[in-house]
Amino acid sequence: MANQTQYNVAVVGATGAVGERMIALLEQRNFPVKQLKLLASARSAGKKIMFKGQEIEVEEATPESFAGIDFALFSAGGAVSKELAPHAVSHGAVVIDNTSAYRMDPEVPLVVPEVNMHAAFQHKGIIANPNCSTIQMVAALKPLYDRFGIERIIVSTYQAVSGAGASAIQELLTQSRDVLDGKEAVANILPVGKLPVHHQIAFNAIPQIDVFTENGFTYEEMKMINETKKIMEDENILVSATCVRIPVVYGHSESVYVELKSEFELEEVYALLQNAPGVILADSPAEQLYPLATDAAGKLDVFVGRVRRDLDHPRGLHLWIVSDNLLKGAAWNSVQIAEELIKAAK
Amino acid sequence: MANQTQYNVAVVGATGAVGERMIALLEQRNFPVKQLKLLASARSAGKKIMFKGQEIEVEEATPESFAGIDFALFSAGGAVSKELAPHAVSHGAVVIDNTSAYRMDPEVPLVVPEVNMHAAFQHKGIIANPNCSTIQMVAALKPLYDRFGIERIIVSTYQAVSGAGASAIQELLTQSRDVLDGKEAVANILPVGKLPVHHQIAFNAIPQIDVFTENGFTYEEMKMINETKKIMEDENILVSATCVRIPVVYGHSESVYVELKSEFELEEVYALLQNAPGVILADSPAEQLYPLATDAAGKLDVFVGRVRRDLDHPRGLHLWIVSDNLLKGAAWNSVQIAEELIKAAK
Repeated sequence: MANQTQYNVAVVGATGAVGERMIALLEQRNFPVKQLKLLASARSAGKKIMFKGQEIEVEEATPESFAGIDFALFSAGGAVSKELAPHAVSHGAVVIDNTSAYRMDPEVPLVVPEVNMHAAFQHKGIIANPNCSTIQMVAALKPLYDRFGIERIIVSTYQAVSGAGASAIQELLTQSRDVLDGKEAVANILPVGKLPVHHQIAFNAIPQIDVFTENGFTYEEMKMINETKKIMEDENILVSATCVRIPVVYGHSESVYVELKSEFELEEVYALLQNAPGVILADSPAEQLYPLATDAAGKLDVFVGRVRRDLDHPRGLHLWIVSDNLLKGAAWNSVQIAEELIKAAK
Repeated sequence: MANQTQYNVAVVGATGAVGERMIALLEQRNFPVKQLKLLASARSAGKKIMFKGQEIEVEEATPESFAGIDFALFSAGGAVSKELAPHAVSHGAVVIDNTSAYRMDPEVPLVVPEVNMHAAFQHKGIIANPNCSTIQMVAALKPLYDRFGIERIIVSTYQAVSGAGASAIQELLTQSRDVLDGKEAVANILPVGKLPVHHQIAFNAIPQIDVFTENGFTYEEMKMINETKKIMEDENILVSATCVRIPVVYGHSESVYVELKSEFELEEVYALLQNAPGVILADSPAEQLYPLATDAAGKLDVFVGRVRRDLDHPRGLHLWIVSDNLLKGAAWNSVQIAEELIKAAK
């Protein structure tokens, strides 16, 4: 162990929900950290965060913060990544970016380790972490893609408020209590903080995540559509998405219809999912066993259930896919990419 | 007005959530009631309910309760309908049954007034009210079916707990408060009271409504599939459903993908929905306007929004359909059938 290479790691956005989880994962996974640098906006600088029994002070992220850094994990919003990731790269760091800033950049690999880790190895300094709702879907569908091919995906999501940040969590909790107490629910954050109209999320379902694009789909829906093709490296997969926010704190659920390219036996589908890395098949109607957001919260895996053959289309299959949006959907996928890069470098 | 025919109406299941709403609608709509008979189980007999300023005592429903009754609105569970509806018919009443007891009976019309009122006129004593999640979907899709034809429907639902009864509402509210207070959430009712396993609904999404059938779909899903074909009178419409319970009290939401039989212009789709009876188009992305369960609760209409063309399939269309599951999904559809029968008899 004395010989094991250790790395200087920076977490940008260290005080956010995803940053917190990145730090916790680096500790829990015993990531070979030589020095951990915690970076955030000036407003959060000076805060102290525990890491392996040691107090680390959060520093303001600047272009010079990245001197000597090997891995820079970004999760502080697209604008911060746009500004600072190139500086991290020029200091020699590998950037793993959890924002949408570089995801569709043709020079930047968009990576889910279970699906296309090979792309990560061709990085030019920046590796992008996909959108949370995309990650769990492609991780579950990859073994089916490899075996049968995928012609088409139609997905409807049931997304947790934690995907919209800590203030959205607080909004759901406050509104829920107010409704239970017979008070008026006040909406200031969801569906999109910066837009003029806000809707109650407590005891409701909001069919808008992120802003609308010109074709009537939201950006969140377009992310699922475009990122799936890029990660699967197949522009011919047809993808449609309807993204909906529901009153859940942690864990995105997805109702996924997939049309495979060739006919299949359900038994083989089960076997493929059972053996898929990072995937747990939780599917037993007789025992009322299927994935639930409350069960997936806090876990690293992608849970799949309600697997059933479409009643009409001979190549149609339905699945219910659930995962913790802040872990596999964000922090864990980023840390996992770094782990895989290290493994390959040995 | 002196000449207006008046009718003796019985509500079976008068103390339930749907029964309460039936009684309220009979009053609000000024339904021509000569005498209102409120029926329920022996347990609820003796309770008093106000109707048009008059107190009416709930009586135990027996085969003899229906003497002289013109319209008998049933919503007291399938077993009660199976037992008592034939007696009501033999007493000369028209039964409008809001349970699943007779829905797929080939002798019984399954009716949504906006879709197939003509079928109601051929009744042999019993008219069945479809499942809540089916009603709102077919009401919204009917104008598109008439104009373009429908090849295929893939729907994922976001269903309110009130569809599972008053105890499920209480369970959601109690669990929500317990979770907010940091206590353990206890589940005794959902997803299906009579089954052994119960799951937390507060801050969760449960992909099971009703029991599972052998093909891996639940009965709720099979109801949407089979009832849609029967109401639309088209066995060739392909329907797939994934039915999910979410922490909403009133109002089912549905993410619907529909493949029409011929190509379409979006403008015509908007116009058809705008002019459809019982349907309100609420669709303006620029204003963040789309149907929400909290807005639909307490209203009789079916709300449609997020109308957009599929990006790949030339005949594919996505919609978000929301309605109050206890009103258009149950009580209102039943009272509306009675109103239409009366209108036609004039």
